[in-house]
Formats: sequence, structure tokens, C-alpha cells
Amino acid sequence: MTTSSDAPLGVFDSGLGGLTVVRALRERLPGEHIVYLGDTARVPYGTKGPATVVRYATACAGWLVARKVKAIVIACNTVSAVAPERLRADLDLPVLGVIDPGARAAVAATRSGRVGVLATSATIASGAYARAVAAMSTRCEVFGQAAPLLVPLAEEGWTEGEVPRLAVRRYLEPLARANVDAIVLGCTHYPLLRAIIEHEVRDMMGPDIAVVDSGSAVAEDVEAFLRSRGLARSAGSNRGSLELAVTDLPRSFVEIARRFLGGEIGEVAQVDL
Amino acid sequence: MTTSSDAPLGVFDSGLGGLTVVRALRERLPGEHIVYLGDTARVPYGTKGPATVVRYATACAGWLVARKVKAIVIACNTVSAVAPERLRADLDLPVLGVIDPGARAAVAATRSGRVGVLATSATIASGAYARAVAAMSTRCEVFGQAAPLLVPLAEEGWTEGEVPRLAVRRYLEPLARANVDAIVLGCTHYPLLRAIIEHEVRDMMGPDIAVVDSGSAVAEDVEAFLRSRGLARSAGSNRGSLELAVTDLPRSFVEIARRFLGGEIGEVAQVDL
Repeated sequence: MTTSSDAPLGVFDSGLGGLTVVRALRERLPGEHIVYLGDTARVPYGTKGPATVVRYATACAGWLVARKVKAIVIACNTVSAVAPERLRADLDLPVLGVIDPGARAAVAATRSGRVGVLATSATIASGAYARAVAAMSTRCEVFGQAAPLLVPLAEEGWTEGEVPRLAVRRYLEPLARANVDAIVLGCTHYPLLRAIIEHEVRDMMGPDIAVVDSGSAVAEDVEAFLRSRGLARSAGSNRGSLELAVTDLPRSFVEIARRFLGGEIGEVAQVDL
Repeated sequence: MTTSSDAPLGVFDSGLGGLTVVRALRERLPGEHIVYLGDTARVPYGTKGPATVVRYATACAGWLVARKVKAIVIACNTVSAVAPERLRADLDLPVLGVIDPGARAAVAATRSGRVGVLATSATIASGAYARAVAAMSTRCEVFGQAAPLLVPLAEEGWTEGEVPRLAVRRYLEPLARANVDAIVLGCTHYPLLRAIIEHEVRDMMGPDIAVVDSGSAVAEDVEAFLRSRGLARSAGSNRGSLELAVTDLPRSFVEIARRFLGGEIGEVAQVDL
């Protein structure tokens, strides 16, 4: 199969959090066309079991394949933690996840080798970050902390004030006790809470702790991959398009999507998987 | 079709919150067999659009019909708000929801006629409580407040401490300003937060505000309905059985289910809808 560099990148997520990855991709790769699918009818994945997540991810990826994408970016840590091998085995298409780039950024950032990960219950339970870090460095130890309330806080738009502050502190406590010096935001919802997380990290653990968001690391990874395959759309081209599709259109969709993407969202299609 | 009183009651919910209704049913109707289906693979419904909720509710009800239940109890405010007419039109079976019993209890409890409702975004957006109350009383006014963070707080088990306290206060503020004197807990997850909600209601609004939980009102309704049709299983019978089925079995399932049911959960089947 020959793939054209003009073909779109397919990006999917359990919901709208993956739009933070789209935002990073569009900053780094403005020429790329992007088709984004958010499985908003079944969000969140992060509280669910691995078999269910694999089933849903397979349906999302299949929908993108039918759209003739040149590669698939899994913009969801939970899916990247439990489903990428299965998707790679099933699809005749490159599949890039968010765990490896995030792990690489954390390994680069830590000095003590003690790396903390904040993520959904499913991502933490999978041990995917610990495996990814172990494959890159023998001197690092990973401390995972499930932080399930941060997803609804980000979706509700409660990104400042006492409620998110106290929730963040409660989740950071075990990481502070473990003396980590780098913390991965292992869920694409968390960049919305980045300011409050950084503030509390500093307050609890001092000024020298790195907070690593995988969004920009993913964009670097995708760029390197596309260039290595000659699949990057030339920088001289017009700005790439962005097509959004979701499986459910809740009342607050536009407001939430805008918050994650950091800009206007344009037309949105509702699809049934 | 003749239905035996020995046939089970079918109960379904978007997830595990409906187990608080099962708990009330088993207290009031200990002889009834109950088959419970929790759509944990697609929980929550309360943040999703009405078309998606109707589609999921139809699948859940269909699964219970195949189990030959004598009636269906929708143990979910979101489904009861948007889908009961459709289910009643599609099914040759009695369908009971949780909105009418909750509204009736609130109308009975209010003196000023100013009734507050805390519920999911979908339930509030549907206006179902306002319609139900208006059908029962011309002297009442309903003030709805969406409280989306309370579901994840209850599931996470954060039912005491500063985070739920401040979240509850933030959601109660508009109801306090509206001078309601009765507040319906319009989501089956909220009984787990009842203690903290009652405490903050008292603190913010004084001692005379009624907090109404629809669980026991639903159990009364179901009992009256079964007796009127001669379908109640005789009180002299052995204690009824409880069968649980879910569409996803996440890691923390047993702990969460036990919290909602208030006791041991026994065998659980995983089904695919």
C-alpha cells in the first residue's frame, strides 16, 4: 500500500482530553491534516477494565482506518497503556502511542532516577509507564499514583480554587513521600490542571521538580516518525485541516472541546461506532 | 402474557449507583428476587446526550426482558429523566422510574413550595423533575443544580473531608440563594454523600431543610405497584435472591459495589450488550 503524505493523521481518544495532543501536533506540524475521533459516548476509559478498553480502541481505530489515515496516534494514555500491541497486530498501519514519549521525557528530566506518574486507574494498574521507563533506563524507578478525580475536574472546568488544589495535594502526597524529582502527567486531561499541579508540586516538594506533559513529546515523536518515512506534509503547504468526530454530543461539548483544544473547534460530526 | 409473582424484578443503572436502590428494595421487599444490570462499560450516562442515553437504556432493558423479569425498575435518574416513555412504548412490561417517587417525596416534604434538585447534567437539562413536580402540585417551584463531580467523588470513596465538603458547598450555593426548603438527591450515587450533604445543608441553610433520597420512595412505589397487580412475592417466602451483572469488571469493582449495596455482593456475571 502506498500512502500519500497528503493523507490525514488519525488521532483518537476516549473523549476530548486528546485534543490537548492535537493542539501540540498542530503547533509542531501545522501542515498536517488531522482527523480526530473522540469516543464521548463511552468516556471515560480510565476507570474501566483492559478487555473493555481494547474493544473500544479497536472500534475507534477501525473508524480511522476507513478514513484512509496515514498513521494513527493514540492520544489517550489508558489506550496506549493496554491496547497498542493489539492494534499494531490488527492494523496494516503505523500506530503511535503517548506512553513512550512521556516516559522518554521523564527519563531525560529526572536526576535522581525517581520518577512519579499521575494517571488514570487503568493506566497505573497496567504498569505501562514502569515498563517503558525500564526499557529506556536501568537507573530509574517509577512511582505510579492513580488520580481518578482529575479527569472530571478538568471536564467540569474546575481548574483553579480549593477543590482541585486539595485533590491534587492528596494525589501528590505519596509521590512527595517517595521523593520523586520528575512527575509525568500521564493523562491527556491533566494539562488543563497543569498550573495548579505545578504550583502544588513546588509548594510540597520544592522548586526543582520537573512536571512532564506528554503532549509535546508525542508531537516530537510523530514528527520524527513522519520524516523518517517521508510521510510529513511539506511545511510550505497550506495549513492542515482539522476534522472532529465524536460518538456523543453532550450539551457542554463545545465549551469543553474549546478548553482542551485551546481554540475554536469548527464543524463536528457525530458518528456511531 | 401471564407473569408469575416468583419472576424476578429487573433493575438497571448506568453503573453501580443503582445498587443504592437495590438496597432500599431489599429492605422493603425482602422476598423479591432481583436481577441487576449495571452498564459499567459505558458509565457515566449523566454527562451524555439524550439520544445516546436512550440507545444504551434500550439495550439494558432488552437484556432484562430476555431474563423474563416481571417488571423493570430504572434505578438511574438520568435514564428515568430521558428514556422511560420510549422504553414503555417498546416493551410489553411495566417500567418504573425514580423521578416520580423522588418528586412526590419532595412535594410532601416542602412547606414553602421551593424545591431544589441536585442531579447529573443530563437529568437537570431534561427538566424531568420540574415536569414531575408540576404534575403533582401547582404550588411548587423547582430549582435544578447539576453536580457532575459528585458521581466521581462517590465512586472514588471520597465521601468525607475537605474535597467533597467544598464541592458540595459550591453546588448548594445557588439552592441556598433560591431559599429552597427541600432538596432531592436526584442521582443514585448521592446517598453515599448523604451525611456530608446534610451537614452542609444544615450549616448553610439552617436545620429545617428536608433532604430527600429517592431510593426509599422508589421502594414504596414498587411495592404498591406489585401489590396492585398481585405480583408481589409473598412475605412468607424465603429471602429473595440477588443476581448482579455488569458490562465491565474494573479492578475496584467489588469495593465500589459493596459501598453502594451496603453489604456483600456475591457472584457477578460480566455480559456484553
